[in-house]
Amino acid sequence: MGIIARRGMLGSIGAGLAVGAMGNMPLWARAKRKLGYAVVGLGSYATQQIMPRLAQCEFAELRALVSGTPAKLEKFGAQYGIPRTHWYDYRRYDRIRDNPDIDLVYVVLPNSMHAEYAIRASQAGKHVLCEKPMAVSAAECEAMIAAARAARRKLMIGYRSQFEPHNLRAIELVKSGFVGRPTLITSEHGFHIQPRQWRLDHALSGGGSLMDIGIYSLNAARYLAGEEPLEVSAMESTDRNDPRFATVEDRIDWQMRFPSGAIANCVSSYSSGHNAFRVTGTKGWVGMDPATSYAGHRMWTRRDAQTSEVTLPPPGKDQFVAQLDHLAESVLTGIPLRASGEEGLKDLQLIEAIYRSARERRVIKLA
Amino acid sequence: MGIIARRGMLGSIGAGLAVGAMGNMPLWARAKRKLGYAVVGLGSYATQQIMPRLAQCEFAELRALVSGTPAKLEKFGAQYGIPRTHWYDYRRYDRIRDNPDIDLVYVVLPNSMHAEYAIRASQAGKHVLCEKPMAVSAAECEAMIAAARAARRKLMIGYRSQFEPHNLRAIELVKSGFVGRPTLITSEHGFHIQPRQWRLDHALSGGGSLMDIGIYSLNAARYLAGEEPLEVSAMESTDRNDPRFATVEDRIDWQMRFPSGAIANCVSSYSSGHNAFRVTGTKGWVGMDPATSYAGHRMWTRRDAQTSEVTLPPPGKDQFVAQLDHLAESVLTGIPLRASGEEGLKDLQLIEAIYRSARERRVIKLA
Repeated sequence: MGIIARRGMLGSIGAGLAVGAMGNMPLWARAKRKLGYAVVGLGSYATQQIMPRLAQCEFAELRALVSGTPAKLEKFGAQYGIPRTHWYDYRRYDRIRDNPDIDLVYVVLPNSMHAEYAIRASQAGKHVLCEKPMAVSAAECEAMIAAARAARRKLMIGYRSQFEPHNLRAIELVKSGFVGRPTLITSEHGFHIQPRQWRLDHALSGGGSLMDIGIYSLNAARYLAGEEPLEVSAMESTDRNDPRFATVEDRIDWQMRFPSGAIANCVSSYSSGHNAFRVTGTKGWVGMDPATSYAGHRMWTRRDAQTSEVTLPPPGKDQFVAQLDHLAESVLTGIPLRASGEEGLKDLQLIEAIYRSARERRVIKLA
Repeated sequence: MGIIARRGMLGSIGAGLAVGAMGNMPLWARAKRKLGYAVVGLGSYATQQIMPRLAQCEFAELRALVSGTPAKLEKFGAQYGIPRTHWYDYRRYDRIRDNPDIDLVYVVLPNSMHAEYAIRASQAGKHVLCEKPMAVSAAECEAMIAAARAARRKLMIGYRSQFEPHNLRAIELVKSGFVGRPTLITSEHGFHIQPRQWRLDHALSGGGSLMDIGIYSLNAARYLAGEEPLEVSAMESTDRNDPRFATVEDRIDWQMRFPSGAIANCVSSYSSGHNAFRVTGTKGWVGMDPATSYAGHRMWTRRDAQTSEVTLPPPGKDQFVAQLDHLAESVLTGIPLRASGEEGLKDLQLIEAIYRSARERRVIKLA
């Protein structure tokens, strides 16, 4: 690790967006080594989705593990060839500061721990990739942004769908005017949640389906609209006798109105399956189902009374790899960071407005 | 006309619902003549959809025409063989009382005229079928119901989708538990409205897309839910600089919460095309697109990770014929009336709540 190696042509990330091409890179960047990630929190998402993908990255690799469970450090340390010197428990977490092999920290902890562990990573001089939701409040997001700024380090949020080719194509189609002027965005996400997990404990999750899966509906509505909502109105529906929902909401659906006049109807559910969006405009629509899944995305368009499925070639990098590489590439080459802390903050501001609208039973205007 | 004829086996209406089978009919009914409709208002819907279908009816036929335009009376009188004695203008409308060939009156006028012409028909001793929306206010609906009750005559609203086999099958599937406990109903209707027509004049229409096409989203959400909403929250979006929308709304989307906890997300638009609904529950979903069109309905279900298209055999009677026959059959045999005035009133109460919610920017609880 830490060996400087010349690298060949850099691949592109996603469908034509944020391409880092060799020709545009400064000489120092072309010669730069891969950056090293520490993964914080060795739950199923980290170990099953993220860590295997780090081996496929062009600009980054796995170099350190952070967990409170010694057996996990043993197991994954062995599996990924991470030496004991690069294992950390939460007590020793701040010592990552002294490890120059760690450039980037990926925070994959329960939501209520995101802010603390992201801020401590920034303070340790590391760039941060933090899972969504960025934190459990907008105030925490602001503290995270301030900490990264003070440390002159980057802060990115794990919005993997913003690196997924079908989603990028849908954004392009809307932006190009394919659907005409967008009038309605529907964005629906939900699944059946199993009992007894941290996501159902408000102290750890900060909220129910909205914090976990509804945030996909929210984030997609925003990136599809290409503008920020002016106001929000929400309705919650939770069976408080269901032991899963003792402290968090099951379902919350909301409407957002955008400056263009477009309205988004969004769904968030822990008791039914949804993974779809559609942007309808004055000339047609573009839709996906599944829209933000790990794989198997499908996409359709309608124009001139013709519905067509859109098939894309397999991407050079899948959404996970593209996301992991993006932070590293941005650090290495200075390309603008997508899915930044400011993006995560916007979602938390909206999530707070959605909860408030449902509680106060009225439209909430956004600042 | 007026000839008493014995008739054979009576066909069924729709997918197994409200079947009028010969064996269950009283003897007097089996021997009854067809009933005669007067059609009030000879616009495109009446002349292109309704009048051709009356020729296919089992229990009814076209016997009189009401129009303010003499040329239309001449043209359609000749086309359908209706004698001059059975032509009425609006000045002479109340004289239908003296015409025993007229049993039923179908009111197909602009919305703001529904109440007056339905009430005058009831007062003339006729049974009434009135196009949706039933009227432009709940108060008018109540007056129409009172007038029909006082006259001991029936009052039905033209909810043709309640007689359409795919819609009836969708209702049955939800009721049978196919989707589990319903959690989300999406119901979306809209089209691009052409300028310069009475629907865009609030004095005649009583409202914009909601009165015209959004009422399909509303009525379908209610019949799919099989229960009545407790509260509603709505958001309007209208470009008042568009000359089409000087006096009526373009788009209004709303949420309704039902006693079971199900939430409906409904769309009504005059500037984009939508004709679909879906009921998602804890076990799967059933959806249609198009859902409430004149023809070409398509229906899908999803259960156990399997999506299937549902194909139904061609119906004995299409939705128009089934609707026209239903009022006549109910009059002849006493079968319970579906799509009654009370059903139309419920929609107008909700429409008023939807407009009020959008205006006051808060959730409206229903009485």
